[in-house]
Amino acid sequence: MSEAPADLETADLDHETRVGGGDHEALRLWLRLLTCTNLIEASIRAALRRDFNVTLPRFDLMAQLYQHADGLKMGELSQRLMVTGGNVTGIADQLVRENLVVREADPADRRAWRLTLTAAGREAFAAMAARHEGWIAGLTGGLAPGERDQLYRLLGRLKTTVKEPA
Amino acid sequence: MSEAPADLETADLDHETRVGGGDHEALRLWLRLLTCTNLIEASIRAALRRDFNVTLPRFDLMAQLYQHADGLKMGELSQRLMVTGGNVTGIADQLVRENLVVREADPADRRAWRLTLTAAGREAFAAMAARHEGWIAGLTGGLAPGERDQLYRLLGRLKTTVKEPA
Repeated sequence: MSEAPADLETADLDHETRVGGGDHEALRLWLRLLTCTNLIEASIRAALRRDFNVTLPRFDLMAQLYQHADGLKMGELSQRLMVTGGNVTGIADQLVRENLVVREADPADRRAWRLTLTAAGREAFAAMAARHEGWIAGLTGGLAPGERDQLYRLLGRLKTTVKEPA
Repeated sequence: MSEAPADLETADLDHETRVGGGDHEALRLWLRLLTCTNLIEASIRAALRRDFNVTLPRFDLMAQLYQHADGLKMGELSQRLMVTGGNVTGIADQLVRENLVVREADPADRRAWRLTLTAAGREAFAAMAARHEGWIAGLTGGLAPGERDQLYRLLGRLKTTVKEPA
């Protein structure tokens, strides 16, 4: 492969490859952030599929319910997952059919549906979550603890600034 | 809103809200990275729709072609955009109908299609790209230049480590 031009080497094809010579720091930063997220997400997506035959949106939905033992309303779930209600409904239907989730009218708001993990759902998620955390630790394990702390802190600053743009 | 429990305040609902007390640093780091990416992407998606009536995948595809004046094969495009061939085909079909892209048999590989932006396509993309860069600069503008450099460098380290997990 040493004869191939750099931009034909598959391993280096990602969003960052679209940065042109004249582009500015902010754009470079964003494309690198996007690339890191996409690489980790693709790896997790493949591992969930391989080890549990589960999609990432399904894992994310169960993760939210796991953190809320009292359940969440459909609208709250959509908001937390940053996806449309339609997607949440489809995944929820499937989880209800598999007895991993129950759907009941919300006691405080009769027009709203509230989703809760069943005992079987909590158990199934806990097994996936333990493995998931191991994957993430492996993917980020090349960073020194100090680098990881610093990155975490800077991303916290970015999150704040994105929510309150200059 | 000061009476509402913290987890009902809409502005704070995101992937990070699923971090439980016992979770480890690596997982927290990943969920914060994901949250930052999702927040910026949602903002850009909304702005592209509002100002240009264009979807983000379409913008991303045109961005790749803009960087490659000689065009790209369909397979190369899919790889760079980290999406399936089907998605690329649908968007490309639309761009061809609008005379923003031409699709020709690749001279070196007759079985492959090669996509190139037309002059009108290059002009349309350049207008969007200038605006896009301004949005990104605004979204990240709350970081000091030093913080931005440091974040860029640490994300470079993360990218390397994700590609060669420990």
